[in-house]
Parts: sequence; structure tokens; C-alpha cells
Amino acid sequence: MSSSSIPQVITCKAAVAWGAGEALVMEEVQVSPPQPSEIRIKVVSTSLCRSDLNAWESHAIFPRIFGHEASGIVESVGLGVTEFKEGDHVLTVFIGECKECRLCQSGKSNICQVLGLERKGLMHSDQKTRFSVKGKPVYHYCAVSSFSEYTVVHSGCAVKVSPHVPLEKICLLSCGVAAGLGAAWNVADVSKGSTVVIFGLGTVGLSVAQGAKLRGASRIIGVDNNPQKFEKAKAFGITEVVDPNSYEEPIAQVIKRITDGGADFSFECAGDTNMITTALQSCCDGWGLTVTLGVPRVKPEMSAHYALLLMGRTLKGSLFGGWKPKSDLPSLIEKYEKKEIHIDDYITHNLPFDDINKAFNLMKEGKCLRCVIHMPR
Amino acid sequence: MSSSSIPQVITCKAAVAWGAGEALVMEEVQVSPPQPSEIRIKVVSTSLCRSDLNAWESHAIFPRIFGHEASGIVESVGLGVTEFKEGDHVLTVFIGECKECRLCQSGKSNICQVLGLERKGLMHSDQKTRFSVKGKPVYHYCAVSSFSEYTVVHSGCAVKVSPHVPLEKICLLSCGVAAGLGAAWNVADVSKGSTVVIFGLGTVGLSVAQGAKLRGASRIIGVDNNPQKFEKAKAFGITEVVDPNSYEEPIAQVIKRITDGGADFSFECAGDTNMITTALQSCCDGWGLTVTLGVPRVKPEMSAHYALLLMGRTLKGSLFGGWKPKSDLPSLIEKYEKKEIHIDDYITHNLPFDDINKAFNLMKEGKCLRCVIHMPR
Repeated sequence: MSSSSIPQVITCKAAVAWGAGEALVMEEVQVSPPQPSEIRIKVVSTSLCRSDLNAWESHAIFPRIFGHEASGIVESVGLGVTEFKEGDHVLTVFIGECKECRLCQSGKSNICQVLGLERKGLMHSDQKTRFSVKGKPVYHYCAVSSFSEYTVVHSGCAVKVSPHVPLEKICLLSCGVAAGLGAAWNVADVSKGSTVVIFGLGTVGLSVAQGAKLRGASRIIGVDNNPQKFEKAKAFGITEVVDPNSYEEPIAQVIKRITDGGADFSFECAGDTNMITTALQSCCDGWGLTVTLGVPRVKPEMSAHYALLLMGRTLKGSLFGGWKPKSDLPSLIEKYEKKEIHIDDYITHNLPFDDINKAFNLMKEGKCLRCVIHMPR
Repeated sequence: MSSSSIPQVITCKAAVAWGAGEALVMEEVQVSPPQPSEIRIKVVSTSLCRSDLNAWESHAIFPRIFGHEASGIVESVGLGVTEFKEGDHVLTVFIGECKECRLCQSGKSNICQVLGLERKGLMHSDQKTRFSVKGKPVYHYCAVSSFSEYTVVHSGCAVKVSPHVPLEKICLLSCGVAAGLGAAWNVADVSKGSTVVIFGLGTVGLSVAQGAKLRGASRIIGVDNNPQKFEKAKAFGITEVVDPNSYEEPIAQVIKRITDGGADFSFECAGDTNMITTALQSCCDGWGLTVTLGVPRVKPEMSAHYALLLMGRTLKGSLFGGWKPKSDLPSLIEKYEKKEIHIDDYITHNLPFDDINKAFNLMKEGKCLRCVIHMPR
């Protein structure tokens, strides 16, 4: 297609979720042309993130196309798009950067007011969908929906990357790995020689570990109730592992005991609000900092005894590790190219698109870190 | 008494609380000599703080001598005390500074591991009391107990002051005013032009206001359900007042509306864990910072929806505004002497020691900011 021609509806394959927890079904979907300020992408690689699984298991918006960690190639652009052109390699991002709103311009936050987390399954610009099956609209997920051969995203929700970078690897920077590294660097600002405790040793937790290790943390304690994760964890910088099932005492007490009063930094990467409380209890009086990254599946309210705060602890949250996608992702990709950060090691499985339900099963069973799903060429 | 003589037991007047919420009774108490590392102080002025009232109304430790915001003159010193001598003017402090523990030496916190908040009504060093009535031990409060003509404190819980500074004013720096200023300066680091919301317009809240004003905050919104406090509040820098009773919508929604998305900084100074949640909801996405200073009377657990954190908010607590008493109070006193900060204006009432129960009533009825109680000369 030449860039001057008018984009038409594309019919392609997408993995549609028809109901909570139901196996995805490969459907022929119609993908609308990109609207003004949008781009249509031919997805190349997309990895399964825990948030996809959680939303698929629990959310009420169906039918829906999940997937938000992805890379691809621009197929066409909507009116007014000058940043991208057909053939550009891109990463999708689940929070965008408009560069114009008060928050984007503040220099103090990566939360865009215009292209923030989209929770209704619609596109930011017109609150409609770009997918349909037999005329019936199919909802988006995080305004990305990469479990489709083609998808439409807002141009503020994509980042251009060099054609030399392997799309099948860097898709992990689209969410999990970047979120973990950023939590350690931007949000917590982990210091050399510090003690760090990480709750949840999935890709996000192990990316926090990598970030903490690169900052020179001296102890990086990993907590997970799945001991199968322990061997792999050490490769990412975890120096000690703790399985809560091995102790009769509360796990915060264990951490305080082995760290002589609590860690300097604790990270909640398990998606469990009770674990936020535990993380706060596990860090030290005076300057203990807890960062919460996980998106809880149940019980959205966290609680904490006020005295934990009065004694000098800080609790903060982070979405995408504080990275502004367009401004900051290029530097992370550069670090990957220079081998200053590792991405490939998080990829424990590779599957063709047709086997996407296997990826869901692997993650449900806690058997993978990242499973990259490869689209047909 | 010469400094070489051995201190004897002193018999003097103290206001003893015999039970929760019961009027204090002036008793003849015996005050032990200071033990090693302790000093005995002739109290000169002591102001009533909300924490005294809360503990008196709710705590289970009786009989007890309350009071922790105080100034006085050293009467005698225990073995090994070289920092103080008889006749020195001092401020008492409810959290000490040993200068030797890991936290004191960290340079990152004002929470001393050795002389931290004492909750059992005993002295830090030997877990005993220095007061008795007719042979029966009387418990301390915060290891200060200034509602007595003489009291014994650890030498790490007192700060030497120049004899030229008026003790009947600077006693307010012993807790409330310092806590508020420090919360604005040390803990929140309020920035020029920012929007601040303060929940609770007592002395602590209005000291946050003074601190925020001195930092050049452009809007300082005060929230209190007692409109009697509003007139006075403006003198301390409050630019707008909000009475939750005047609105049908939740107060966080009101604040978000009038601040176009939420304040940059919010402070919980009311001693109410539900208000911590409200304060967190009232600050903005991206960089909103909530500082909690109050000590709750009921329900010690605060709760918050995880999304408030993920959207970039930070929650932190503060004890004594982050000031290290010995290291930092002298500079605050200097600011007072140079009229760079105001203290006198918080003193709405002055009463002789014999009328101490009137001070409790004034505070219970929300009619005072600080009431200074003057000891007999």
C-alpha cells in the first residue's frame, strides 16, 4: 500500500476472548483503518503478561482481544500522523505519551492525562472499537490488543525503534521488563550496598532484581511461594530466596529477622494487596521504601497500620516503572543493544500464534516467565 | 545543690492521671534522682498537645503523668552526663537522639533506635519509673512527663537552649510546631507555587501551613469540620477553608474539583486513619504526595485503593517532622529568634499549673490551639 492510498478494512486472524477464563478462539476479525492520530500495526511478536491473564480471568468486558506487550511494523497511518510511516518498526505501550497534557509537560510523571490506562476496552479518541467479528464490536485491552495479526493504536501509544533491533525480543520492554527496571531505578532509586526484598518472582519481580543488581544492591531477597522459580531467579540477581510456606511465623517477621530490622527497599510484584502490607512491614524504620507494581486480582484495597508510616516508611506506586514511553524507551533499547541490560533470559517459551492458549496455560501454571507469541510472517 | 553533691529524691507537685478521661489530681509525688545518662529537670513551661489528650482518654496505663511539650532548667544530672549541667536551659523531646545507633548515624532518619517513642510509660534505660505516689509507681508519658514540677528524662531526650530564649514560648517547638514545619520542609519538601491541602487545623496542621507558606506554596487549603478554626487559620497561611459538613459530596471529590485534579501535597493532621485515605484521594495523579502526621485515636489501620498508588501517589509518615532533635532544633530556635518563624501566635491560652484540667477541657472542646501551662516559679 502506498502511503497516499486510503487505508481499507483489513480482515485477519485474532485470538478473541468470548468470556472470562474461556479459551481464546481464533476468529476472522475486521480491523478498521486507523482514525486520525492512530496507526495500524502488523503485529510481529507479542508476549503474554500476567495482566492479560488477570483481566481475562476476571474482567467483565467481552468479547475482547487481549495482548499489550508487543512489537510490530506500521501498516498504515491515520490523518495527521507525521511521526510514523508505513514500514516503521514500533513497540506498543499500554500507557501513552501525548507530550502536551499537564502531566506530560510536568517533567514529574509518566502518567499521561490523555492516553492513560484505558479500562473500558475502547480507543482513547472516540470511545469506540476498531475490531469487529461478523459486525459485532470486539473490545480492546489497554488500547493495544496485540493478540491479532493487525491492530490499531493511538500514535501516542507506540514508540519507533530501529529496524536492526530484534522485535521478537524487545517486545518485553513494552511492559514487564521495563516496569521492573524502572521501579528499581526511577521510582525507588535503589542505592549501592542496600538490601532489597522482592515479593513475587515473575518477570516484573526479576526485572526489579536485575535493576537492583545493576545499582549495586548487596542483598536482593526474593520471596515467592513457588520454589520452582528459585533456580532461575538467581540468574537475575536474587541473592537469597524465601518460601513463605517454609515458615510458621509471618513472612514480614522472617524478613525483619534476616535483615536485622527490615530491608531498605521492598517491592510488591505479586498483584496482591495483602502483600503490599507485608512489603511495608518488611522494610525498615526510618527510610524503608515500598514500591507497589502489581495489579491485584482481588481486594483492591490495601491496608496498613499507621505506625508503619509514622516510623518513617514510604509507600509509593508505579505504572510502567515511571518511564515515559516515547521519551525514555529508546534509551532502554540502547542499553539492550549494548548488552547493559538483559531481556532474552526472561523468554522461557516461544510459541506460534495458533498456540496462544498454551501460553495462557503455562502462565496459569506458573511454568513460564515470558512466553513470546510469534505472528505468521 | 552543688554539682558535686549526690542528688536526692525530690518531693513536688504533679498532675496525676488516675484513670482514662478522669480529671487529673494534683498529688505530692516523689521524683527519683536521675540515673546514669539521665537528667532531672525543673519544668518551667509545658503546653498541652493533642497526643496527651488522646492517650489520657484512651490508654490503659495508669496512674500516669502526661505532658511532653516542655521547657525547663536542669536541676541535677546522673552519672556520665557531660552534655548538661545544673542550670542549663532545655527543651524536652518525645523522641531522643542517641547519636550512636544505626539510624542516628545513617543521616537518613530522625528515628533513634535507642530512644524511640516510649509506649509503656517507662524510662528507656531500665524500663522503670522515676515517679511514685505513696510508694506506688506512677508511669511516664513519652519518657518526658512534664506535668510535674520536676521530671527525669534521658539526656538524649533533651536539647540545650540559650538562656536568652523565652522558655514559655519555645516549649511549642518540643512537639507540635516543629512537627508541622518539618513535615512541610523535611518530609514533603513543599515547592514554590504548589497546591497544598491540610486536613485538621490544630497547631500541627497550622504549622504545616506556616511551613508551606514560607516555601511559597500558592494555595494552602485547610479542611476542618470546626468552622471556629477558620478565622485563626488564615493568619498562618491558609488561603482557603473547606468545611466537609457544607458539602454533600465526599470531601476528596470537592478538593479534586477545586484543584483541577488534586493537590500536589496533602497532610493528614487530624489523627484519623480514614482521613489518610481521603488525603491520598485528594492529591493528584502523577506526583501527589500525602504525609500523615496524626496519631489516630481509633482504628489504627489505614486503607487505600491500590490504583491511587499505581497512578503515581506517594504516602509517607512523619514523626516530629523528620527533625533530629539535638542536631536540628537549635537551628529552628535560631529561626524563631530571627523572627523567621512564628511560635507565639499558636499560644491562645496561658494557665497556671493548678488549672491544668482547664487546659484539657479547652482542647477537648476545640477551643484552643496551644494552652501553655506555667509552673510555679
